[in-house]
Amino acid sequence: MNCVTRVVIGYSCTGRGMCGTAPFLVDAALPQNLRIDLVNHQHITHRRNLMPKRKANAEWKGTLPEGNGTVSLGSGAFEGAYSFSSRFEEGVGTNPEELIGAAHAGCFSMALSGALGKSGFKPQSVKTEAVVHLKKDDSGFTITEIDLDCDAHVPGIDEDEFGKIAEEAKKNCPVSRLLTGAKINLTARLKN
Amino acid sequence: MNCVTRVVIGYSCTGRGMCGTAPFLVDAALPQNLRIDLVNHQHITHRRNLMPKRKANAEWKGTLPEGNGTVSLGSGAFEGAYSFSSRFEEGVGTNPEELIGAAHAGCFSMALSGALGKSGFKPQSVKTEAVVHLKKDDSGFTITEIDLDCDAHVPGIDEDEFGKIAEEAKKNCPVSRLLTGAKINLTARLKN
Repeated sequence: MNCVTRVVIGYSCTGRGMCGTAPFLVDAALPQNLRIDLVNHQHITHRRNLMPKRKANAEWKGTLPEGNGTVSLGSGAFEGAYSFSSRFEEGVGTNPEELIGAAHAGCFSMALSGALGKSGFKPQSVKTEAVVHLKKDDSGFTITEIDLDCDAHVPGIDEDEFGKIAEEAKKNCPVSRLLTGAKINLTARLKN
Repeated sequence: MNCVTRVVIGYSCTGRGMCGTAPFLVDAALPQNLRIDLVNHQHITHRRNLMPKRKANAEWKGTLPEGNGTVSLGSGAFEGAYSFSSRFEEGVGTNPEELIGAAHAGCFSMALSGALGKSGFKPQSVKTEAVVHLKKDDSGFTITEIDLDCDAHVPGIDEDEFGKIAEEAKKNCPVSRLLTGAKINLTARLKN
């Protein structure tokens, strides 16, 4: 009788908090008669090597003061117009600074929720407003500061612990670690 | 006869490329009988002290792996959903990384158009795709690199000069100077 053992190398997609974890690897000496079937091989390759690359597009038509542009998100969630006036004045349309603000507010809210979870709390909501300061200095237009103003509803936590976790989340969230050209100011309030 | 001279301190809004320039200041010794009328005073104050602050909001509801969120732009141009899956997997919705990409592509396209104009060219279009690389390393999820891939239509410029101006625009655009946590790679092609 030929004894065949099937070894499945991989991990489940349903444990969402585990995303990014290296798949289980079989590294032991294997008996010569062990057959290894590659199950869901393509999926594993995808998970191991390809964290998402996110895309976005912009087109500016014409000169800087007189032209106009469009920006669009790779997911298809948004496409919209921007202009000199919507960026530096009060014109209708979007601008790079509010897109930065949305990225930062979104990332920080997620990061704070995750950090609270790791400390044993179950956050009900984390709501953040980002204010992006654009100023003119010797280098030209410069994004000098970003204020994050956060209200969180987190049962069972005290103010001190919440404050410490929020400060860490500000420091460690991927977008904060990207935006190192500006000062980031956090005001975080516990609203229970 | 009482001689009155009216001095208007201010500058025109229609010269859009001049936005952010300090208004003309009267600093000379003035004769005692000179009356100064403040014309359009409020507008001048606005221009001098208040560069735009751009706002955006996000709310995350629930824990990190199981919750979900919304992001919105202060201009009202966009409000949309995001989730663990739309950020780290292939779920439907937006994510902070593509918002960063849109900000960067938008800013760079505008900055390159402006720099070309300063060098005496009239760009017809500057089209940029931003690809934002999110990776998991020892610090957790990290935005490591941003690729800017640009096609520009600029009559009368040669490849060398275009390449130099594009590289400068990459270095100097306000969003590049903000995103100093990542490596920024530019590929710029002249498409005339």
